[in-house]
Amino acid sequence: MTVHVDAAGNIAGRFFSSDSVTKRNIAPRTLIFGSHLDTVPNGGAFDGVLGVLIGLAVAEHFSKPESTQLPFAIDVIGFSEEEGVRFAQPYLGSAAIAGLFDSAWLDRTDDQGISVSQAISDFGLSPQNIADAAVDPSTVIGFIEAHIEQGPVLESAGQPIGVVSSIIGQTRLVVEFLGVAGHAGTTPMTPRHDALVTAGHWIHEVNRTALSIDGIRATVGRINVWPNASNVIPGRVEASLDVRHAADDVRERSVAQFLALAALIAQNGGAGLSVKHRSDVDSVCFSKRLETLMCDAIDATTGTVVRLPSGAGHDAAIMAKRFPTSMLFVRHPGGISHHPDERVDASDVGVAIDTLIDLVNRLAAQEIS
Amino acid sequence: MTVHVDAAGNIAGRFFSSDSVTKRNIAPRTLIFGSHLDTVPNGGAFDGVLGVLIGLAVAEHFSKPESTQLPFAIDVIGFSEEEGVRFAQPYLGSAAIAGLFDSAWLDRTDDQGISVSQAISDFGLSPQNIADAAVDPSTVIGFIEAHIEQGPVLESAGQPIGVVSSIIGQTRLVVEFLGVAGHAGTTPMTPRHDALVTAGHWIHEVNRTALSIDGIRATVGRINVWPNASNVIPGRVEASLDVRHAADDVRERSVAQFLALAALIAQNGGAGLSVKHRSDVDSVCFSKRLETLMCDAIDATTGTVVRLPSGAGHDAAIMAKRFPTSMLFVRHPGGISHHPDERVDASDVGVAIDTLIDLVNRLAAQEIS
Repeated sequence: MTVHVDAAGNIAGRFFSSDSVTKRNIAPRTLIFGSHLDTVPNGGAFDGVLGVLIGLAVAEHFSKPESTQLPFAIDVIGFSEEEGVRFAQPYLGSAAIAGLFDSAWLDRTDDQGISVSQAISDFGLSPQNIADAAVDPSTVIGFIEAHIEQGPVLESAGQPIGVVSSIIGQTRLVVEFLGVAGHAGTTPMTPRHDALVTAGHWIHEVNRTALSIDGIRATVGRINVWPNASNVIPGRVEASLDVRHAADDVRERSVAQFLALAALIAQNGGAGLSVKHRSDVDSVCFSKRLETLMCDAIDATTGTVVRLPSGAGHDAAIMAKRFPTSMLFVRHPGGISHHPDERVDASDVGVAIDTLIDLVNRLAAQEIS
Repeated sequence: MTVHVDAAGNIAGRFFSSDSVTKRNIAPRTLIFGSHLDTVPNGGAFDGVLGVLIGLAVAEHFSKPESTQLPFAIDVIGFSEEEGVRFAQPYLGSAAIAGLFDSAWLDRTDDQGISVSQAISDFGLSPQNIADAAVDPSTVIGFIEAHIEQGPVLESAGQPIGVVSSIIGQTRLVVEFLGVAGHAGTTPMTPRHDALVTAGHWIHEVNRTALSIDGIRATVGRINVWPNASNVIPGRVEASLDVRHAADDVRERSVAQFLALAALIAQNGGAGLSVKHRSDVDSVCFSKRLETLMCDAIDATTGTVVRLPSGAGHDAAIMAKRFPTSMLFVRHPGGISHHPDERVDASDVGVAIDTLIDLVNRLAAQEIS
């Protein structure tokens, strides 16, 4: 494969069947496989990287002399930053490939005050060249992401793989509660404006409210407190909020409800409130053509096609905005993700690889005909 | 002055009147002034260091040829770690001087996993020599700490300084809530064990309960969340709790109440609970002899003696366990402490210095007679 790293830190390898270019004498189109290489802190071994390795296994298959000569290239991409842990902005890598990288993101900073732009420079890349990472959609036949399910559906169904019907929508935001710092020993309780008491109350109420909204997922996963010293009343708190629902309107109404709670609780606690960052990703539907091919391939390898939505966001949600896209889920025994106990069975991975090889063969036949 | 740094990182300077040793031909006793040199993050310019500078000003006065020849040395100590921010253990420096340094503290770690022992070594000192920092009480006439009040009493009374009658007791502890980390998008709300929801609920309830206990101060100032990523359900939270009350029994009952709340809320949230660190400092009373001298000196310089308790802990609370101790508070306009807006008036500092010089002269007269 010919490998390069783009300005967003994505690593991509390109494979051509020996005669795929020369015989056709036109600029080659490509079928892209990929997923992300980053993980959450203390995460598992499969979330992301499994999809990159499966893509490589498919490419390896077609590099064998006895394999079909493909009328297109195969690209395998390891996206650079999907989880959004460091800069509270997910999908930096796939957004760059899709030509959807917002240059304002370059100024986002991490906990140490290092900007995205600086981090890219420190890695030896040129943030001013991010736009060059964009791939022309006219050259792309499709994007296919394999990923562990991170949920219980396939395990319950007793199936090794399934096709992802859609990715449920997601809103991420960062809420800031602004109180007044003070000495923990000398400041009486009554005139306090404790930003952490306010934030704690809100976190509890968000959870309580979410329990009453069918199908919602609402999570405050990250909190930063200033000055975060045991003998100082917290003066400022930033808290993330991650909200997901299959129905975009329910998600939007729920977010409004959580923010109204924050406003009410902040007001009662004598704290200021601001929403500092916000990103909304609506539910994503995929390419019908690729989904049909994927279902046919799954049916051929397993005899049973399970269609299921994804509760997690994926690079595929971004790629689908520009390229025909499909996702394959691999069974996830135990269903524990973002945790070292995350696991996957090798035999299921084998079925996934066989299925995607079958899909590539079907696609090649369509493209040639 | 003869200056040295001890193994706990305290810096101490010793001053002798020219003939204080030679004329008496015995091992000299000393009067110690001092306070701490560390601050909380984003703290003010006076909390701690003011007491060191006032001690230096007093020593400077007695270095002048026209000043009283003192029958004792004056030591001025800048204690190394009073706030307890980094290792959740206050009074490391003064505990070493008082011979009360618990060697188990050497294994305490900061957020980066660096131990007290390692931090001391990295600073170029020898943690195994901590015991050598202890000062023999038989050589100490007394310890005097000047400090900003960090409260409104002197400002309300219209007085520049006051004598501290006692230091109210304080319990510090670190509570750990142990939940289960998981994916924020794929884990439904109902089987979650979100450690931050549990901690947030507890923080809110501690505050609510504290509002109903007269004279209590209860603060959760510091919180650490694992993995602290916006798309991961928090699996573990550590939260500090700082509780103070003038009456030791009320403080102890309140702490028991806050811990019972934690146990109840953790159980309801399906989270584990442990109390990881705990330190208790009972209310501290000071030397009657030094207090009388301090009152006489204050009366001489201002004509009015204000006696007031300290809501904050101070190195004097530790030093008082081994040495006759007294504290002088300096008026604190605005009363905002642990904050950059902390301030003090130069004229009040002048009154404090004059008062302590007067106190030293009175003490010298008593010692000689």
